[in-house]
Amino acid sequence: MNTTLRQSNLFTKTRKEAPSDEVSKNAQLLIQGGYIHKEMAGVYAYLPLGIRVIEKIKNIVREEMNVLGGQELIMTTLQRKELWAKTNRWEDKEVDVWFKSKLHAGGEVGFGWSHEEPIANMMRNYISSFRDLPTYVYQFQTKLRNELRAKSGIMRGREFIMKDMYSFSSDKEEHDEFYSKTIEAYKRIFKRIGIGEDTFVTFADGGSFTKFSHEFQTIVETGEDVIYINREKNIAINEEVLNDETLKELGVTRDELEKVNTAEVGNIFNFGTGKCAELGVEYKNEEGKKIPVWLGSYGIGITRLMGVLVEKFSDEKGIVWNEAVAPFEYHLIVLDNGNEEVRADAERLFASMETRDISVLYDDRDVRAGQKFADADLIGIPKRIIVSEKTLASGEYEVVARATGVSTFAHEQELLND
Amino acid sequence: MNTTLRQSNLFTKTRKEAPSDEVSKNAQLLIQGGYIHKEMAGVYAYLPLGIRVIEKIKNIVREEMNVLGGQELIMTTLQRKELWAKTNRWEDKEVDVWFKSKLHAGGEVGFGWSHEEPIANMMRNYISSFRDLPTYVYQFQTKLRNELRAKSGIMRGREFIMKDMYSFSSDKEEHDEFYSKTIEAYKRIFKRIGIGEDTFVTFADGGSFTKFSHEFQTIVETGEDVIYINREKNIAINEEVLNDETLKELGVTRDELEKVNTAEVGNIFNFGTGKCAELGVEYKNEEGKKIPVWLGSYGIGITRLMGVLVEKFSDEKGIVWNEAVAPFEYHLIVLDNGNEEVRADAERLFASMETRDISVLYDDRDVRAGQKFADADLIGIPKRIIVSEKTLASGEYEVVARATGVSTFAHEQELLND
Repeated sequence: MNTTLRQSNLFTKTRKEAPSDEVSKNAQLLIQGGYIHKEMAGVYAYLPLGIRVIEKIKNIVREEMNVLGGQELIMTTLQRKELWAKTNRWEDKEVDVWFKSKLHAGGEVGFGWSHEEPIANMMRNYISSFRDLPTYVYQFQTKLRNELRAKSGIMRGREFIMKDMYSFSSDKEEHDEFYSKTIEAYKRIFKRIGIGEDTFVTFADGGSFTKFSHEFQTIVETGEDVIYINREKNIAINEEVLNDETLKELGVTRDELEKVNTAEVGNIFNFGTGKCAELGVEYKNEEGKKIPVWLGSYGIGITRLMGVLVEKFSDEKGIVWNEAVAPFEYHLIVLDNGNEEVRADAERLFASMETRDISVLYDDRDVRAGQKFADADLIGIPKRIIVSEKTLASGEYEVVARATGVSTFAHEQELLND
Repeated sequence: MNTTLRQSNLFTKTRKEAPSDEVSKNAQLLIQGGYIHKEMAGVYAYLPLGIRVIEKIKNIVREEMNVLGGQELIMTTLQRKELWAKTNRWEDKEVDVWFKSKLHAGGEVGFGWSHEEPIANMMRNYISSFRDLPTYVYQFQTKLRNELRAKSGIMRGREFIMKDMYSFSSDKEEHDEFYSKTIEAYKRIFKRIGIGEDTFVTFADGGSFTKFSHEFQTIVETGEDVIYINREKNIAINEEVLNDETLKELGVTRDELEKVNTAEVGNIFNFGTGKCAELGVEYKNEEGKKIPVWLGSYGIGITRLMGVLVEKFSDEKGIVWNEAVAPFEYHLIVLDNGNEEVRADAERLFASMETRDISVLYDDRDVRAGQKFADADLIGIPKRIIVSEKTLASGEYEVVARATGVSTFAHEQELLND
């Protein structure tokens, strides 16, 4: 990905009006800013600015997965019926989000909405002895889900990018240790992405294998989930498991809890040895005895995170990205009014930033100042540098923070040494 | 992606025997080496070593697309019936590789086997004036095709990664200029990837909009295509358009041509103004007149390229990657035989290489020398560094080229200054 871009070369354009067929703020602003394009309800393309944000988020997640010892791979979209039938997750009455199609060569295929089954099944090729464990793999995969409704923009799509990691451990202790380490890694990720304080490790339904799973729920007004939190005790409970038993177990009473709307940005799930037993993923221990492997599954919704950020960090003028995920660090705006010296100064500054690999979108377009400012507000890059007759005269550039609107002034060297 | 990796941490293992259900050399070797996993016929997952090769190829292609002024985006897998019906490419009798499914919300969706229609349609939002042209966009997309047969491993899959670029130009001259520049960019790509000399710009069927399209065909014994070439005149003709008219037009006779088997690694296609006229992609020229846009489409099969490389560059021992696409530049092999000094020397060298971001896979496993060598031959990393009692005594490391088997000796500083 190029570090710099001339806005005159960017094919996307901003739109003043929100698209009439979108009710969610994230989709409205992202479409207006030229980040995404709606192909159909719940299905969005990611345009040059959008793909940059996605890659930034992915790289933060990738770094933390690598720290955990995760090995990146990429599974397939096409899925075999026979495999999912083994764990009773093929039929529509069991899993209601499958897209399925007929193969011209005969038979049926599904389209990956999740990848526990194919990953665990594949690992049978590579796990046979206790020496092969533990092992951790992850992928960034486009998931397809046949959702009945899709009204939350990129917060719940029929097609979306997810990071999913899987842990294969030899026993409960090894499993639990990694499970806890992943919770810490997830906390680091959400902190780096800028939603650490509003994201809660939440007790949720554990499905058939364990009592609880853990969700990472971020407070956002338009979130589709409801959880109950106690900030002091740092406890969060999904409403689906809010009952006397849970309250007692967690040592909290109903009136100590605050009800909030949230979006699930991550979840971690303990399959115990159940899933691997179903699929025949076993290892031989030191005594040569065959034992099913402990499986954990750890998701983060990459595109959903992007949507949550827009929902939480935007104002009446547009999006407000933080530096960790912004498509560019700087938005360089030249207001030349036909003054060739001003234009030349901006070009020179841009060239110097390019040389130093400073991340900058350069608004070199021949349009009015008002439009440049409105577009910059909508696009939401954290720091705006203004080059004008005024700044040329003063020898300092104006730097405006998108989040606060506060102006400071900086010499060229300060900007270049950034 | 990490620059270095300890082989003891790699979850994949090599296999001595080729899988019995694969007839193609590329799939056999890539599965044996732990690069890919077969999910079903024509559908492969890419494991840690495989994803590294894919990313190397993608980055070479990406660099050249950016040089052309291409802007990266990512379209969607899910496709709208209504859009493709407009250009008569929805019905199975018109396009026989569609996967289709029912939407729970009602209606049908297709799964992207190509993206001309959605990209051109989307560009209606961004192209209105002559000032918006020319513009070039590209993506790396996982395409899904319901192929009846799939016997060529990753050279023809039901699920595969493709780079597709699209040019939008205001007139024939602008279109032709970019078309020619792309041919040159493609030549650079195939040269960088190591198949430049065996890849021919080939005249092929142009479909409904032009007489010829241009394919990039690479000579490979197991290729599914047949073309006729004349190396001196630098002419190549796909058998599908080999007729008297074509021969006359290109100034070559039948007996001057050599018949070769090839794989199509790229193609470029001129839609003229036809496709944009069908979809209503128009711009206003300087006189305010609405004119349909010239469309070009430019594909490169990323996963197919990986398959072609394996077919062409392998021997009885395994794969022979070139440096441009190899998963790692060096394969560091320690033969310690329990000698702690040898092990310590290898660890120290690995740490020094890590510090310098030198790309290296370190075989730190506790297995026999014979197995390490066999695995290294199969995996096919270009340069093997051997650390043993002999090298420790001599003060020089042995460096063996995978392609030639030739050994040279190098001091640590020579390796680190690489």
